[in-house]
Amino acid sequence: MFPQNPVIAVVGAGAVGSYYGGRLAQHGHDVHFLLRGDYDAVRRNGLVVESCDGDFRIPAEAVRAHADPRRMPKGDLVIVALKSTSNDELASLVPPLLKEQTAILTLQNGLGNEERLAGLFGAHRVLGGMAFVCICRVAPGVIHHTDHGIIRIGEFENSARRDRVERIAAMFNASRVKCQVLDDLRFGRWQKLVWNIPFNGLGAVLDLATDRLVGSEEGVELVRQLMEEVRSAARADGVELPPEVVRVNIDNTRTMGPYKSSMQVDRQQGRPMEVEAILGEPLRRARARGAVTPVLEALYRAAVVVDAGLRFRPATQDH
Amino acid sequence: MFPQNPVIAVVGAGAVGSYYGGRLAQHGHDVHFLLRGDYDAVRRNGLVVESCDGDFRIPAEAVRAHADPRRMPKGDLVIVALKSTSNDELASLVPPLLKEQTAILTLQNGLGNEERLAGLFGAHRVLGGMAFVCICRVAPGVIHHTDHGIIRIGEFENSARRDRVERIAAMFNASRVKCQVLDDLRFGRWQKLVWNIPFNGLGAVLDLATDRLVGSEEGVELVRQLMEEVRSAARADGVELPPEVVRVNIDNTRTMGPYKSSMQVDRQQGRPMEVEAILGEPLRRARARGAVTPVLEALYRAAVVVDAGLRFRPATQDH
Repeated sequence: MFPQNPVIAVVGAGAVGSYYGGRLAQHGHDVHFLLRGDYDAVRRNGLVVESCDGDFRIPAEAVRAHADPRRMPKGDLVIVALKSTSNDELASLVPPLLKEQTAILTLQNGLGNEERLAGLFGAHRVLGGMAFVCICRVAPGVIHHTDHGIIRIGEFENSARRDRVERIAAMFNASRVKCQVLDDLRFGRWQKLVWNIPFNGLGAVLDLATDRLVGSEEGVELVRQLMEEVRSAARADGVELPPEVVRVNIDNTRTMGPYKSSMQVDRQQGRPMEVEAILGEPLRRARARGAVTPVLEALYRAAVVVDAGLRFRPATQDH
Repeated sequence: MFPQNPVIAVVGAGAVGSYYGGRLAQHGHDVHFLLRGDYDAVRRNGLVVESCDGDFRIPAEAVRAHADPRRMPKGDLVIVALKSTSNDELASLVPPLLKEQTAILTLQNGLGNEERLAGLFGAHRVLGGMAFVCICRVAPGVIHHTDHGIIRIGEFENSARRDRVERIAAMFNASRVKCQVLDDLRFGRWQKLVWNIPFNGLGAVLDLATDRLVGSEEGVELVRQLMEEVRSAARADGVELPPEVVRVNIDNTRTMGPYKSSMQVDRQQGRPMEVEAILGEPLRRARARGAVTPVLEALYRAAVVVDAGLRFRPATQDH
């Protein structure tokens, strides 16, 4: 049984890890944060969250911040909120946190994260979740949460363990985080990709916010075409997304105003973009199962080139 | 017969018009420049060209600069070097310059410019040409020419008039501009698009210089795919480009160093990009003739969206 008062470890305390971990800590849970660059700032100033669902703060003397996983208590629940571009670090960061029954919940973007964790630590431990949230880390230990916030979580393959996912969801719901349980995590993952692939992908490679992408007929057509390709890829992967997901996602994006996707922000700030999780892995599944996705293919290649370019110096010749 | 000492009018004196018109003037030809924004500067300071083929200068007292075509002499040759995004102005700018035998040579980028001129002024007048040149206007009336410079010109449809194109070519060749005569202008146009579509198109939508596009396997693959689509579109349009154009264009680009295409520079400076001439018209021909060009299709849409975005204010929400 998943315990009533679990020890929780949050691996990767960027915006998502800090926000959701912070909400659990705010509501009395025993949450330990594994930090890297922000460790000193959080030790000194605590964690500050300005949120549309209510501001809160975990003061420096109360925050359980750690720089080394070997000095953390083992957890009942490990929440993985690393950027997927840092997944190579999971093999060293997570093992010190595990005991026999530890569950691992990844809240990372894209496809392939549960598979990675399952391969490293055993599929029986793994749950996946998606955060639908407008959030950003504006300074070390300072998070702005501006809209939405729901998470949807599901067991990776352990459908018999319904009690575990229900308990974790109940814990979030009691901590001011709306959390839904997914019967079919793969459906949820593909459903989220219907938005993420065009808006993170095009947003990053074209360096355009959402309002520009849906602000012209040609932009909508490009988005629509990618969304249909995601439906084809999902279908080839055994997930049937209803046709109306295309219209609904475009209509919802029209009401969002100018919004820069995380991949666009990463590009603008010269940080690695989550190309493989959001574009590469979906494309590889489409290819492996024979789906025809030429625009996704071009988008992926473009994103790889842009991402590689972030590690170049800019061109100097200007004509 | 095309006259030995023609009156020449250059419409649109940006980098290309100023350079090629300037070379003709430098070598004693009667060249009149129709200027817009740069008129005052050129009247005051003349035309200054720093060129890898030899610097030169047309002093203020010698330069024949005009702001109004109705106050210019009629020409024997009108050289159109407007940016293709200003083609709507041709109908008012060119007629005052025409007499019965006036020839019109467009040195503009992309497809559709000869057709536009032919529709307005008669196909018998029209010649087309392509400038292979690294050139830029660094200030009003100041041109930097850093590499290459050859032009290739051909009759639009008047193949009987070989004497005219030969005379014009001879005039350029006698004025330090290497000029070749094309027997098949459409072949030349499509051949140039093999480079322009991937490097101007991707360069602009991804905001990347050539070295980044050919600096990774995925980038080369994307470029290669677009070049093959251009070959398909050309074939559907009756032009068979040999398979080696793909390899040759990629290899030549590898030796260029970091180079920003004109469309990328336009994007960075917030000026209209030549989307329709370089991407839209080739795509429309491909569509009309049943060629399959999915990556070109996506690239065109992306370019339309980016170009429209240049007239937006930037998004302010940053997360």
